[in-house]
Amino acid sequence: MNTLQTVEEIKQIKDGNILMPQGFKAAGVHAGLRYSKKDVGIIFTENPASAAAVYTQNLVQAAPINVTKDSMAVSGKLQGIVVNSACANACTGEQGMKDAYEMRKLAARKFGLKDHAFAVASTGVIGEYMEMEKVKKGIEALKPENTRQAAEDFEAAILTTDIVTKSCGYETVIDGKIVKMGGAAKGSGMIHPNMATMLGFITTDAAIEPVDLHLALSAITNDTFNQITVDGDCSTNDMVLVLANGEADNEPLTPTHSEWSVFLELLKQTSENLAKQIAKDGEGATKLIEVNVHGMQLKEDAQMMAKTIVGSNLVKTAAFGADANWGRIIAAMGRSGVKFQPDQATIMFCDIVVLNDGEPIRFSEEKAKAYLENESIIIHVYLKEGKETGTAWGCDLTYDYVKINGSYRS
Amino acid sequence: MNTLQTVEEIKQIKDGNILMPQGFKAAGVHAGLRYSKKDVGIIFTENPASAAAVYTQNLVQAAPINVTKDSMAVSGKLQGIVVNSACANACTGEQGMKDAYEMRKLAARKFGLKDHAFAVASTGVIGEYMEMEKVKKGIEALKPENTRQAAEDFEAAILTTDIVTKSCGYETVIDGKIVKMGGAAKGSGMIHPNMATMLGFITTDAAIEPVDLHLALSAITNDTFNQITVDGDCSTNDMVLVLANGEADNEPLTPTHSEWSVFLELLKQTSENLAKQIAKDGEGATKLIEVNVHGMQLKEDAQMMAKTIVGSNLVKTAAFGADANWGRIIAAMGRSGVKFQPDQATIMFCDIVVLNDGEPIRFSEEKAKAYLENESIIIHVYLKEGKETGTAWGCDLTYDYVKINGSYRS
Repeated sequence: MNTLQTVEEIKQIKDGNILMPQGFKAAGVHAGLRYSKKDVGIIFTENPASAAAVYTQNLVQAAPINVTKDSMAVSGKLQGIVVNSACANACTGEQGMKDAYEMRKLAARKFGLKDHAFAVASTGVIGEYMEMEKVKKGIEALKPENTRQAAEDFEAAILTTDIVTKSCGYETVIDGKIVKMGGAAKGSGMIHPNMATMLGFITTDAAIEPVDLHLALSAITNDTFNQITVDGDCSTNDMVLVLANGEADNEPLTPTHSEWSVFLELLKQTSENLAKQIAKDGEGATKLIEVNVHGMQLKEDAQMMAKTIVGSNLVKTAAFGADANWGRIIAAMGRSGVKFQPDQATIMFCDIVVLNDGEPIRFSEEKAKAYLENESIIIHVYLKEGKETGTAWGCDLTYDYVKINGSYRS
Repeated sequence: MNTLQTVEEIKQIKDGNILMPQGFKAAGVHAGLRYSKKDVGIIFTENPASAAAVYTQNLVQAAPINVTKDSMAVSGKLQGIVVNSACANACTGEQGMKDAYEMRKLAARKFGLKDHAFAVASTGVIGEYMEMEKVKKGIEALKPENTRQAAEDFEAAILTTDIVTKSCGYETVIDGKIVKMGGAAKGSGMIHPNMATMLGFITTDAAIEPVDLHLALSAITNDTFNQITVDGDCSTNDMVLVLANGEADNEPLTPTHSEWSVFLELLKQTSENLAKQIAKDGEGATKLIEVNVHGMQLKEDAQMMAKTIVGSNLVKTAAFGADANWGRIIAAMGRSGVKFQPDQATIMFCDIVVLNDGEPIRFSEEKAKAYLENESIIIHVYLKEGKETGTAWGCDLTYDYVKINGSYRS
């Protein structure tokens, strides 16, 4: 993909959201699963949408993940997704599966559709059963609309301990048609107490077959959602789902379509945007950390090293303390499993060089500290193994992380 | 090794230390590398000792590690080790290597020995050069003796942010001779600021050739030192060194010696004891966590799963908060890379069952909380894949961890 060429063709829309693409509706209500906040949400499209999803790599997978896979297997198309927060419906045995199927049925029936028209996602406490009476009433109360408020209600209904809602929107032109894409997400990390889940929902009116949408999602996931880490704990419920309902009326996108790369870039930018919002709103976080590893032979190695650095508790606490502790960075590099020549390593905080070709550099601690007090920090590592770059995003480790996760479930 | 048979033959000695075995002397002094605390130490044996060491797996290795490897390569024998704290002498380029060689020479010359009679270990800040004038004066000031005070001085000289010194001693009978073993260690974790290192030093008067000592150390390291984690950050300076000077006068120990297993158990108990002391004194820690995974087909899998659980930030914060958050445990199990049947998993906090064959169990939160408020917590995971057990040790993640690691280097 020629990034330089395609980036200009993609426009970010201020306050964009999942309802920007044509033909989508959404809603979110308070069903009583959470004390007072919204906890049941829905996305719906009249035109069946090609669907593609990626799931948690955790061996332990929650019931809704299995039910969503079941829905997708029928035709690769969906007309919507129903989501609840507060309860992850994970490690809930057979009752959990029954509840997730029931939730899907309730959503589908609401629109007179077959069960498999809907996907299901849950996020919340692991090991507790769903309060199905409340879920049922919540689904009944949902009134999907295409308004800014409806999008915001959905965004709110999928949160757990997230502090802010997360959304974005982009548009581009494919086959002379305007193609839009919107996204909503909830916080990563396994959150208070036993909370599970990163959820990402992306809508687009692009025309594309399920198999190609899956191809596109697979192509960009490793560069985006898979490159964020809050605390290294991957959950039982992680899911990113893309719905493409075709209303933009472009020629169906395939890898041989002349603008395939434009669509990939559209999907990548939407995903990266959501991924960074998730990292920045990590539990207790005060800042976003971006790590770029340059000069590796394999991109996978550069990405693994970047993720190891940004996931290191010591790098994270140093970021919190605005301390230019580059020794922690090179130590993380050394245990990343990636081979490199330490005596050729250069490390920079933004443009401040602290290690140059393996030799410590005298730098202004004051200037470095001032830089590290920003809300977004960029760390660059340069090696001389090759030409590939890998990027990862994370957040600092703070007193509030310990507070959030160390406090009792009540 | 028949553990049941051999355990009874090994006696732990109250307040045991590295000078309990015959023929060892030690010292520790304040050389000015640290503000007021002891910072240069030495262990010495007149009789050359068979030596065996294991080192950090980090690709980035500090200068003293290379110098120690160089010493060991000559004959496999050592007469001592010189150690400093405050400066790790890591990522210090050629100057760092020169300084580490100089430090070795200064120690060896003190006893009229060839350079390679000594090993070198350093722990402290990464990326700063050694203050060699101070080191030189420190080494000159060392007066090795065989007294309790001398052992304590050494134990103190190797600390960085450790709160307590760490030592132990055991004895057994081999070939009718009393064989003693003692150990000293310093804290694990990569500590404030950029501090590096777990250091373990074990002395014994057992007679054993270097090659067999190496075999023994390799056999027990994976069950002991390699099964502790404080924050997942492995340092550039980690080293465990065993010195066996043969003064117990037993028949040299080899794998075919009838009491080989007794020696292995002696070494294992000494190592496990030090490892647990290190875990318990992890940065900011208030409690020791032990995780036992039972019923795996491969021991390595059981160990990896145990270490993943005990290393999870979420399990660690839950332990800090005395919260029986078993969902975090099963989520860590699921991402450990080890295959198992989640619906056959049982989880217990000591004797309190919280998950039974994959089904959540109603348990007394009060009783669980009371148990989790202990200074030592034991978590058991039972699976039905096989008969192997793996154990790992760690500590809780607290406000103080963030404080220690988030504060500025000054």
